[in-house]
Amino acid sequence: MTEKIIIGIDPGTNIMGYGVISVKDKKMSLLCIDELILHKLDSHALKLKKIFERTLAIIDAYHPDELAIEEPFYAKNVQSMLKLGRAQGVAMAAGLLREIPIAEYLPKKVKMAITGNGNASKEQVAGMLKNLLNIKEFPTKYLDATDGLALAVCHFLNTRHGISDGSKKSYSNWNAFVKNNPKRIEK
Amino acid sequence: MTEKIIIGIDPGTNIMGYGVISVKDKKMSLLCIDELILHKLDSHALKLKKIFERTLAIIDAYHPDELAIEEPFYAKNVQSMLKLGRAQGVAMAAGLLREIPIAEYLPKKVKMAITGNGNASKEQVAGMLKNLLNIKEFPTKYLDATDGLALAVCHFLNTRHGISDGSKKSYSNWNAFVKNNPKRIEK
Repeated sequence: MTEKIIIGIDPGTNIMGYGVISVKDKKMSLLCIDELILHKLDSHALKLKKIFERTLAIIDAYHPDELAIEEPFYAKNVQSMLKLGRAQGVAMAAGLLREIPIAEYLPKKVKMAITGNGNASKEQVAGMLKNLLNIKEFPTKYLDATDGLALAVCHFLNTRHGISDGSKKSYSNWNAFVKNNPKRIEK
Repeated sequence: MTEKIIIGIDPGTNIMGYGVISVKDKKMSLLCIDELILHKLDSHALKLKKIFERTLAIIDAYHPDELAIEEPFYAKNVQSMLKLGRAQGVAMAAGLLREIPIAEYLPKKVKMAITGNGNASKEQVAGMLKNLLNIKEFPTKYLDATDGLALAVCHFLNTRHGISDGSKKSYSNWNAFVKNNPKRIEK
């Protein structure tokens, strides 16, 4: 029975939320859910450093087969989007460094995959995640952590029919991954 | 006589330009100027991978003491800014991985430092760089490479009076660097 590990990561500029799931025999179980609090750091550079280090640490702790990240479509202005893009960039670089394929999902698609409603609230998504993973309560303070976990679960639900099954730890498979999953890689 | 190596990098989504200078006895010399062509790659993910790998390769080839990057203030829309932010993020992550302090400069400030005119053209900046570095012609095809080089030269000109002199290769000095250079680190 092969096991597949998926990390979902939502790197914001105030909080980075993340979750790790294990999939065995098409059944999910929760390995980790946590958040990295960034809003107390007063420089953007330090935030990027923390995001990069934490993402690399999670990858090295869980050795995931795939990484799922949000594809944001909105920010209040271009400067906010630059900061968000950089936060995502350093997290993605940790995945690139360890040669983990990266999939991207629009927030609406994540909500749709998990609740069946693209406009579901964060609380609805969190409630459904508890059901799907058979857990009573999340240990985390903020809902950002469930955003990260939701990405991992969404990635599993979107790939469970074999579209991108199997280990893609080596970069020899990265090009194939991109080719086979054009809709999940941002053009 | 101590030598200081500075990398200037301008990671765009079509071309990444970069330059490396050596500073000895407050005199600059050119070590490298080049560009990484990205517009032929059809996925954003592959571009990010290439940017990350090339930046890491340059760092490992030249062992810079400091890295200078652009702080963009404009993009045609938030989606372009997201892509640009990610491109910058992966390049910055290469610097973070190797513990190189990162300084940021607005395009206007770079032009001002090199030509004395914040609205100078790319050609004027390139011409002035040739004078400053005592070279006849740049070997590169596009002006993006000179944008990268301009960042390195701008960083030298802005720090030559000792504000951030000395090696900052270790992260024990990163916090001090941020503290001493609040205006050059994006908040």
